[in-house]
Order: sequence, then C-alpha cells, then structure tokens
Amino acid sequence: MKLSQIGELSLLESIKKKFKTRSKDILVGIGDDAAVLKPESEALLLTSDMMVEGVHFDLSFITPYQLGSKLVSVNVSDIFAMGGTPKYLLLGMVMNKDTDEEVVDSLFKGVQDAMKRYKVSLVGGDLSASHEGMVLSATLIGYGKRYVKRSGAKKGDKIYVTGNLGDSACGLEVLKKMKKPIPFEIMGHRANGKGLKAESRQLSALGLSMNDIEPLLRKHLLPEAKSPVKFLKNLSAMIDISDGLLIDLSRLCDESKVGARIYEEKIPLSAELKRVAGILGISPMRLALSGGEDYELLFTAPPEKKIKAICIGEITASGRVIIDSSGREKRFSAEGYQHFGIQR
Amino acid sequence: MKLSQIGELSLLESIKKKFKTRSKDILVGIGDDAAVLKPESEALLLTSDMMVEGVHFDLSFITPYQLGSKLVSVNVSDIFAMGGTPKYLLLGMVMNKDTDEEVVDSLFKGVQDAMKRYKVSLVGGDLSASHEGMVLSATLIGYGKRYVKRSGAKKGDKIYVTGNLGDSACGLEVLKKMKKPIPFEIMGHRANGKGLKAESRQLSALGLSMNDIEPLLRKHLLPEAKSPVKFLKNLSAMIDISDGLLIDLSRLCDESKVGARIYEEKIPLSAELKRVAGILGISPMRLALSGGEDYELLFTAPPEKKIKAICIGEITASGRVIIDSSGREKRFSAEGYQHFGIQR
Repeated sequence: MKLSQIGELSLLESIKKKFKTRSKDILVGIGDDAAVLKPESEALLLTSDMMVEGVHFDLSFITPYQLGSKLVSVNVSDIFAMGGTPKYLLLGMVMNKDTDEEVVDSLFKGVQDAMKRYKVSLVGGDLSASHEGMVLSATLIGYGKRYVKRSGAKKGDKIYVTGNLGDSACGLEVLKKMKKPIPFEIMGHRANGKGLKAESRQLSALGLSMNDIEPLLRKHLLPEAKSPVKFLKNLSAMIDISDGLLIDLSRLCDESKVGARIYEEKIPLSAELKRVAGILGISPMRLALSGGEDYELLFTAPPEKKIKAICIGEITASGRVIIDSSGREKRFSAEGYQHFGIQR
Repeated sequence: MKLSQIGELSLLESIKKKFKTRSKDILVGIGDDAAVLKPESEALLLTSDMMVEGVHFDLSFITPYQLGSKLVSVNVSDIFAMGGTPKYLLLGMVMNKDTDEEVVDSLFKGVQDAMKRYKVSLVGGDLSASHEGMVLSATLIGYGKRYVKRSGAKKGDKIYVTGNLGDSACGLEVLKKMKKPIPFEIMGHRANGKGLKAESRQLSALGLSMNDIEPLLRKHLLPEAKSPVKFLKNLSAMIDISDGLLIDLSRLCDESKVGARIYEEKIPLSAELKRVAGILGISPMRLALSGGEDYELLFTAPPEKKIKAICIGEITASGRVIIDSSGREKRFSAEGYQHFGIQR
C-alpha cells in the first residue's frame, strides 16, 4: 500500500501506538497542541538536524531502517558532544505520497530501535506527504548537570578521541562501488552472508569479503553515538566528529582560540579499514583525517587528568600541525592538510 | 546571487549575526553541538511544524517574508493553545540551491520580525541546499506554570473563540483568483494601494477593493497568534483553530469525551468577510465553520467564570450540533455538517 492510500490520520494513529510511552516526566505526550514535560533542575540541551534525500542520503545506498536509526544517532551524538543525556525526540517527516508502507514501517522501526538504545521518548512531530523526495527532521531534547562547550580547550591540554576513525568514510567508498543498500540489520548482529549471495560475489570480484566490510558499513549506516559520561567531569572542550577529524578539530580550536598538534601514529585505525582501503587503493590515514560521519567524540582535558580514551596529541598556543610517522610536520586547515616539507 | 553561490558557511555566519541575542537564560546559543538553556521551574512545552512547498504553501501566493512570519506564528499558536509562553526557536530550512539571496533574506526578515513580536530567541537549527522545493521546519520551546489540554471540557462549560472566523479562508479564495502574492507588508501597517496599481485594477474587475481584502489577506498571510494569558486560570480545555472551527471543536470534544452545541448567530464574522464572500458567491458562514488557518483560540470554561471572549455555545454530554439563524438544529462532524431537518 502507498502512503497516499494509508492517509495521514491512520498513520498518526499507528505512530501514537508504536511510540506510546508512560513516563511520569511526560505530562502531555503526542496528540495535543504541544507536548508538556515536567520541569528539571538540570540545564536544557537542544539540537536539531535535517536529512534530505539526494543531499544527505541516497536510498540506493541506505535502507529505510538504517536511515531512521541514523537520524536518531546523529542527534544523540550532538547531545552527547555537549555532555548531556538525551531524553525527548520530536520527529518531522515529509515523504513522497507514493512511498510504500513497508518503507515507512521500516524507517519507523529504525527510529524506534535507536530510541530504545538511547532511552529516548517520542513526544511530538509532524508528518506530511509531498510530490518530491524525503525530508527528515529531528529535534532532540536533553539535560545536563554539566555541559562541555567547544570553546574550553587550553594550551597543554591533551586531545582525545573515543574510537577508530575513517571506518565510516571507507564504508561509504565500498557502498559507492556496490551501488546498492546492504540490509545487514535483518541478519542479526554480525553479517554471515546468508541471503546476500549476490552481494558476496560482487565483493569477491572487488577482492573484498563481507567480514571485512561489515564493521565499516555498520559505522556508516548504523552509527552509534558515544556517551562521554565516564570522562565528563574532567573535560575542557568537546565536539563530535561528523565532518572529519581535521575539520572538527579546527572548529574546536577556532572556538577555543588555540592551536593543536596531533600525531598520525596515534590515530586509531581499524584492521578492516587498513585492509579494505588498501584493496580500494585509498590511503587509510586520509580517510581517518578527512572522512566524515564517524560520530566519535573528540575532546580535550588537562594533562594531569587520567582519561581512558585514545590520546592523539595536545593543544598548543597556536598553529595546527600533524606529525607523520617519519616525524615530519605538516600544517593542516579545516579543508585538509598541506605538506610543509620541514624535517625535524 | 543564488544560494549555491553564497555557500552554507557564509549564510550561517549571517544568520548568527542577524539572530544574535543576549539573554542570561541562554548559556550556549547557535554554533555549538547543541544549545544550552538555564533550567526553569515551569513545565516545558514543545511543538514542531513543517511547511512544505507545494503542500502547505505556494510561493505564487505568498511572499517569502509572509512565509517566514507565518512559520513562527503557527508554532507560537500551538504553544499559546497549550497555555504556555513561547521562548526559544530551532529553525530548519531546506532550500533549492537556485534560490535567490533576496528570497532567503526576505524569509529571514519575516522570521525575525515575528520572533521579535512574540519575544522568541533563535537558539539553533539546520540549513541545507537541495535540488527540489523548499521545506521549512520549526521547533518551538515554551514554558508554562499552568497548561491547558484539549481534554478538560465538562458538560455545561461555555465555548469561546478569541476573534473573527473565516477571514483567512476568504483571503485564500481571493488569492486563488488573483494568482499572485500581495506584498502588503512592504507598505506599512495598512495597505494604501501604493505600488499595487495592477493588483488594484485586477481587484476592481472582480468587484473588490484593496481596503476590503487587506484584513482578509493579512489573516491568511501574516496571521498573529493569540495569547490566552488573560483567560488562562479559568479555562478547562483549549485548542487553536488551524484546520477549521468544526474540525478543531470536534477534536476538543473527542479528547474531552463530550458533545457541543454552537449557534451560527454567535459566530463572529467580520464585515469584510461578509462583503467579500458575498461578491465571490461563497457563504461566509461556511468559511467560518470549515475554513482553516484562522489561528484564533477555541476554549471552554465553567459557566460561572467571567471570560472576556466571544461565547459561541456550550459543552453538552454528547452529540455535536449547530443551531442556525432560524433555530434549526444541524448535526456536525469533523468533516463538515449535515442538515437534520429537525425544527425546534
């Protein structure tokens, strides 16, 4: 059945049922003019993101389930990057009226599973049918006793990341070669190739295996936002890596009015990234430095604090440099990096 | 200059400048991963609305300024309808990359002027360029010591509206005949026809005058949300009239599990509506009962409360009826109303 046949009202009813939550903090949920939430004693955190078909996503690369899940994770990542706890979601959806019911259901399932993972409740939103591509919009509300801005980094602070970089960008490169979505979410936690014979053959022809690409695709298609809760009280500045390490580190430095020195050999690269990027003929380090959408956290902390994360460098008074494996210093900017040719 | 030539970053910079606010309640504004707001002791109200080109608006009927203003007013109306005070706005915009800079500027000016009127601050949002039509999304955050749901109406309560009904729908009918936007916002508070000679001639041919249609168009293109603050402590249920009196009254009755009896002769119609609807050959009462987008408040209060608003009827145990000027009773549903032919 097409969306135009289901109708807005019956879709709204099914959403109300699907997303019904009983929380004593929600005084009025979906279905009135506005949602009403009990006052909290912590600071209120707000973030909003739109995802536009043909700009931010392409349904020939990503399944509706993955898209729904990613929409939630991307917004949760922004609340985490501020040091907050995500709580309430408002969802806006514009879908082409010829969209199949299964697409809508699968997208909602993705949203719902991600909401469960992050303990987030749906409290409102808006639905429309259109004659054009899909537009998704999410506003996420969180709370925080403490919050961490981009602007608090000080000279001497250490720079940390929470996990491997470049996997998501490498996953996207694989998808561009395969030119189809890989619905590994329907096969349980790890892909085992079941029902994906055509895809496995296609991968073999590229010299790749499902085992190698699965963690890369997962990072791109079903990213999980990282909670900073165990580091929180020691941090001086934080941002999430959505556009790439160099761009997002530059933003943190801009806001903090400081410089940074990072070391290539300290940047965490997964074994899969090294292997697959090698086969595809792309530099894994380039993907890790400039590839986007890893949704790892990038943060700084004073050097005396013990932080259980991956230290990749330190904050300096000014200048932005990266030291390569042979000890050469290169300057970088938000756009990328240039070789300076200075030997130390 | 086109949007694609301005670029996202420079547009973001200009927005940051335009919408800069200094409020001690905004701990972190636009430009970090999330906005951070001081905790408040009142309940938190949240509402979200999307406006899609070709579905909710048509740029051959509405100017970008009017659209921007209306986007804010529509959301403010939802917060008012809950009994809250609007405070913070998150704005999402997807615009075709060939959009002219003047369109973007004029839209922002409309948003900004409306925000000033309602004392609302911009704290975040998201911008994208696309290859398709415009999609606007707004999330509005408000606070309320007290809130009024749709579900509190009791048998015997009086039913009130805050102002004239049908003007907006009649304004739309005029626009459909004129087939062009009327930028009366650039001519000061009242249109005087200056610079609108062609439009005035076109109106004359339809037997209409600019003076007559101006308040109707204003209600449709630049609606102002009504604050319920002076009634608030006496109300039992409330909704704003966005889809039409009969539909929205039905919603209030559904949620409250009650019936309603309203009187045609008590429904406030403007002199302009009567005159223009007459000339267009449309029933003004039909526009007032079934036309949408008036953004007047519809609320109920116990009969002993003194309410300075327009009483149009009373809440009953069940059934939904409207009494016409000759005393005949008609039953109505959300979709419209049917003549019952019962004489009293």
